[in-house]
Amino acid sequence: MIDLRSDTFTKPLPAMQKAMWAAEVGDDVFGEDPTINKLEAKAAEMFGMEAAVFCPSGTMTNQIAIKTHTVPGQEVICHEYSHVYNYEGGGIAFNSACQVRPLRGPKGKLEAAEVAASLQNPLDHHAATSRLVVLENTSNKGGGACYDLETIDAIREITSAKGLGLHLDGARLWNALVATGQKASDYGRRFDSISVCLSKGLGCPVGSLLLGSKDFIHEARFIRKKLGGAMRQAGYLAAAGIYALDHHIDRLAEDHEKARRLAQALEASGWVEPIETIETNILIFNLKPEKSIEQFNQHLRQAGILHIDMGQGKQRFVTHHDVSMEMTERTCAVIADLNK
Amino acid sequence: MIDLRSDTFTKPLPAMQKAMWAAEVGDDVFGEDPTINKLEAKAAEMFGMEAAVFCPSGTMTNQIAIKTHTVPGQEVICHEYSHVYNYEGGGIAFNSACQVRPLRGPKGKLEAAEVAASLQNPLDHHAATSRLVVLENTSNKGGGACYDLETIDAIREITSAKGLGLHLDGARLWNALVATGQKASDYGRRFDSISVCLSKGLGCPVGSLLLGSKDFIHEARFIRKKLGGAMRQAGYLAAAGIYALDHHIDRLAEDHEKARRLAQALEASGWVEPIETIETNILIFNLKPEKSIEQFNQHLRQAGILHIDMGQGKQRFVTHHDVSMEMTERTCAVIADLNK
Amino acid sequence: MIDLRSDTFTKPLPAMQKAMWAAEVGDDVFGEDPTINKLEAKAAEMFGMEAAVFCPSGTMTNQIAIKTHTVPGQEVICHEYSHVYNYEGGGIAFNSACQVRPLRGPKGKLEAAEVAASLQNPLDHHAATSRLVVLENTSNKGGGACYDLETIDAIREITSAKGLGLHLDGARLWNALVATGQKASDYGRRFDSISVCLSKGLGCPVGSLLLGSKDFIHEARFIRKKLGGAMRQAGYLAAAGIYALDHHIDRLAEDHEKARRLAQALEASGWVEPIETIETNILIFNLKPEKSIEQFNQHLRQAGILHIDMGQGKQRFVTHHDVSMEMTERTCAVIADLNK
Amino acid sequence: MIDLRSDTFTKPLPAMQKAMWAAEVGDDVFGEDPTINKLEAKAAEMFGMEAAVFCPSGTMTNQIAIKTHTVPGQEVICHEYSHVYNYEGGGIAFNSACQVRPLRGPKGKLEAAEVAASLQNPLDHHAATSRLVVLENTSNKGGGACYDLETIDAIREITSAKGLGLHLDGARLWNALVATGQKASDYGRRFDSISVCLSKGLGCPVGSLLLGSKDFIHEARFIRKKLGGAMRQAGYLAAAGIYALDHHIDRLAEDHEKARRLAQALEASGWVEPIETIETNILIFNLKPEKSIEQFNQHLRQAGILHIDMGQGKQRFVTHHDVSMEMTERTCAVIADLNK
Repeated sequence: MIDLRSDTFTKPLPAMQKAMWAAEVGDDVFGEDPTINKLEAKAAEMFGMEAAVFCPSGTMTNQIAIKTHTVPGQEVICHEYSHVYNYEGGGIAFNSACQVRPLRGPKGKLEAAEVAASLQNPLDHHAATSRLVVLENTSNKGGGACYDLETIDAIREITSAKGLGLHLDGARLWNALVATGQKASDYGRRFDSISVCLSKGLGCPVGSLLLGSKDFIHEARFIRKKLGGAMRQAGYLAAAGIYALDHHIDRLAEDHEKARRLAQALEASGWVEPIETIETNILIFNLKPEKSIEQFNQHLRQAGILHIDMGQGKQRFVTHHDVSMEMTERTCAVIADLNK
Repeated sequence: MIDLRSDTFTKPLPAMQKAMWAAEVGDDVFGEDPTINKLEAKAAEMFGMEAAVFCPSGTMTNQIAIKTHTVPGQEVICHEYSHVYNYEGGGIAFNSACQVRPLRGPKGKLEAAEVAASLQNPLDHHAATSRLVVLENTSNKGGGACYDLETIDAIREITSAKGLGLHLDGARLWNALVATGQKASDYGRRFDSISVCLSKGLGCPVGSLLLGSKDFIHEARFIRKKLGGAMRQAGYLAAAGIYALDHHIDRLAEDHEKARRLAQALEASGWVEPIETIETNILIFNLKPEKSIEQFNQHLRQAGILHIDMGQGKQRFVTHHDVSMEMTERTCAVIADLNK
Repeated sequence: MIDLRSDTFTKPLPAMQKAMWAAEVGDDVFGEDPTINKLEAKAAEMFGMEAAVFCPSGTMTNQIAIKTHTVPGQEVICHEYSHVYNYEGGGIAFNSACQVRPLRGPKGKLEAAEVAASLQNPLDHHAATSRLVVLENTSNKGGGACYDLETIDAIREITSAKGLGLHLDGARLWNALVATGQKASDYGRRFDSISVCLSKGLGCPVGSLLLGSKDFIHEARFIRKKLGGAMRQAGYLAAAGIYALDHHIDRLAEDHEKARRLAQALEASGWVEPIETIETNILIFNLKPEKSIEQFNQHLRQAGILHIDMGQGKQRFVTHHDVSMEMTERTCAVIADLNK
Repeated sequence: MIDLRSDTFTKPLPAMQKAMWAAEVGDDVFGEDPTINKLEAKAAEMFGMEAAVFCPSGTMTNQIAIKTHTVPGQEVICHEYSHVYNYEGGGIAFNSACQVRPLRGPKGKLEAAEVAASLQNPLDHHAATSRLVVLENTSNKGGGACYDLETIDAIREITSAKGLGLHLDGARLWNALVATGQKASDYGRRFDSISVCLSKGLGCPVGSLLLGSKDFIHEARFIRKKLGGAMRQAGYLAAAGIYALDHHIDRLAEDHEKARRLAQALEASGWVEPIETIETNILIFNLKPEKSIEQFNQHLRQAGILHIDMGQGKQRFVTHHDVSMEMTERTCAVIADLNK
């Protein structure tokens, strides 16, 4: 089986497992798990932020961040492709009772002019007051696209001027850092809060981190408790995170290389519309209208290749450490075979 | 003063006032206000629906309807121009903890194909389950545009097939009925719930009605109480509603005529972009880029004419019974004077 | 019919009606109803508070106040008898997502020691942070009992020291003022927010006022809009309020006298347990266990007297201006007849 | 250190760790973690219930259950001592927007008569409709007290007759089963949903299970996603749960014996008020008024013994597998030393 559905399917490699089993643990509800405390401190330092809190999922870190930034009835501005809007079960409304103002923009990325135009008049009772902007980097539904810092600066200028919060859904920020050469601290300086995920390309079994100021994370811990996200001896999971931060970031470059190889093979096959530049490990492409979606899907499945059919002809491949370069080449061969 | 800002500014005419002061009243929290009971029954009968409940505003009738149709974390589909999304303070999130899926479409109106494409997979945990479609007729931000029944039927077919609710924000449905010749019962048959407003073109001081099945309105009364919308001797307000339903619907045709006259005058002035066909009493137009917005606004204000500047060059006039035909002509003359 | 069910059943007297019909009105959503503006200013001045906002019900003024003071997940401390907990449809949870900590105390009144003991540790993630104390004066379910200012001062000291808000549900505060000789400004000085009702003993058809600081009422207006409580030409209702504040407060003393007369008659009948001192216009009493509740209820109903059977032998009479002294005496005679 | 603060401090024993490291894992968000699937099936079978879902905490299983049973504005009936009311951050309001009706009863346990008397009239708009009863067994704040099945049957009769749900917070149900000889299936038969915890006396690092009907758990999985509780390769944690269900239930009897020993030592010391019969592993006791709380706490701390001071003289000891019988005896000796 070659599983290109998502990088969330990665399983811990032996060295990471060894780190997990050696972890010292305690009751994190009482703040006494030394490995979680170490991971939180390590991540905060990387980003140059004051504090961090470990959570069972990236959905939870995003949801806690949004809740901590807002009160009910306010408006959250994000891209119409964004994960917080499309893939968290309507959590912004469910957990925070806030309204989403979804915007458009290239490859899942917001632009400052659009953000500025979407702001509501804070004195108008009819409007939901604009309160928070959420960026997603890399953009999942945008095909793994990366922000440049200039775009972020232009948006940050607006949020600072208007007193809005700026949150980063950095589920795959590691991929962006590797692809662009940006540094974690470039983000820590620019955002009020950042969510990063350990269980995608980094290969940990479970866990995400929410980063922010000391006060923000203090509040976030209260919300984590209310949602039921405070765990006991979760240091085993945190140990995987520490290992991944030390050893698994640079290797993401290989995943990006694999994605580019797959894109070449797809384009060479003549079955797909032109593919936008592959920036990281996500490859979203459209079958040509004259090609059979069913035949495409069946051909891959028979070859033991799993991927995601996003509907309406859109397909998604995600590369990660459990899909080796050899498996990638095997997939390219299977794609070439589409024309046989 | 000629107030073209909104038809919400109408004040009750003497005959309506007389009806109000003669009303028999009681405690509506206990269901004992005979005039409210009469108005609710009268409206339900007009629409061929089972029951109705009187509320202090159209925002409340919409919000109660949405709450009654949904549970937290579901998705409400509506036009990106719609009142429930833009002008009710984020109430869908605030009161119902539901997420909005705003769609596009001509003149503030949804189209069946867009609705169908927006539906979420009800088995996918990542998605907010689609639960309700809200149409607005006439569309306020769409310039008073009216739905035809065929479009509604096509949308109804989807909501019925998929088990979604269909709610009508009929704040200005009376205008649509008069403009198109459709009947109230055409709507009662097609929607699960309808909100109609008495305090806009109909000229009542306060009040809206929510219509639906007996069970739906039973639930709605519980929500009304929780929101604080259950009033005591509000029969005085309901009496105005009864009077308006008997005497004020047909006269809306005059308001539409006035809006057409204003559109002609604007186009003749050479100051505005071509105006889309005026269907009812709302006139949204754009100044030509070379014209001065400030001069336009000042010119009107100096002549004692109030209107709404929607920003980015968009302007709105709304006609109603407190702007007589004579005042309309006077406004046309002021517009003609723009070129002096 | 003699209606002792509630003082909410009062209908406006002719002089009040005359004031209503003469009211100048405007669109209050735009802040342009002069009569509402006048009522809000008048009430704020009476209480020595900065601002006020007019709402369709006392449930709404209470609910808006609680929402404005809190964020989701906090705790509201009130008496287990209180209206906000028992008779507002669970609105504290529904509208504010806050938890109630109901306390005990004599005749529906809180005591400072109980309040102090109920406070949660604000650093404990397990607890809902204590945020607001709500007093009710007079206490409805407490039989119309009145607070003395010393008790309020002792509670105020706690809320000030701990940074909690203090809200007064003054639905029947007018009765307390008349019964105790306290002044409105005694309350304005002591509370962060006050809700007072116009449609109970004061005899207005509809309406309550929420009072607070300028900033607090600014926020409250946003919440009122979200709940659908912003009305258009509601100045007719506000005119009744102005009239009532000028002419109907002192006359509440008569209602208290009527309640005392009824209490005497009940005790003289031998059918009821000893009745606690009648302080205002609410009379809650228990039938002796050996007496037949059904017979009691039937006897009153046959004589055209309506009251509320609160269950488990508890009965409630409420006096008001639509039950004249003569009707009160007639009721006393009917009670005396119980033994015939 | 002898840690008597809580049984949540237990760390996995070597055999459990071995089971964890050997676990086969997958992405549980996609339902593909075989170890989690096995644990869920195993637990459901034990209780004779249709389905189960694994979550990161007992707070989350309780909160999901309450959310799945209710809609906003309803009322949840539980003991005033209950964990869902006191120790889950106001989650019933925060997550479900429901109101709590806290009742009294001996040792943290509800009685049928109290439940019956607390039910609200479902036709009264003023009331929050009663929807769910939550029992806690053993009762934590009730000193580890166990329900007998007769009491549960009497309450179940009410909830069935009135259409309410019945949820069990069985965080320490395993202790109750061992102490009373009741069977898991005795509970599966009687409750609509059950939460059980793996990370307390059973000694797992992380995790709780929510049990219910297939439909109920289907809904619960949607809520889990919205809260951010769906984890990826969490099978490592589930493997500990499987091991614990197979090997750690019977050994809870030792913890109960340790608690009894500690109670004897405390009573023999003359420092404490009479202690109620110790039923399981929780020991709540009051120091005699004449004894110094500070001295008691300091004496224990100096001897390396941690416990919880609940305030107002109340103290709590909890026994578990990380406090051996030898450590228990050592603690008894320290207690005896109080009088030296």
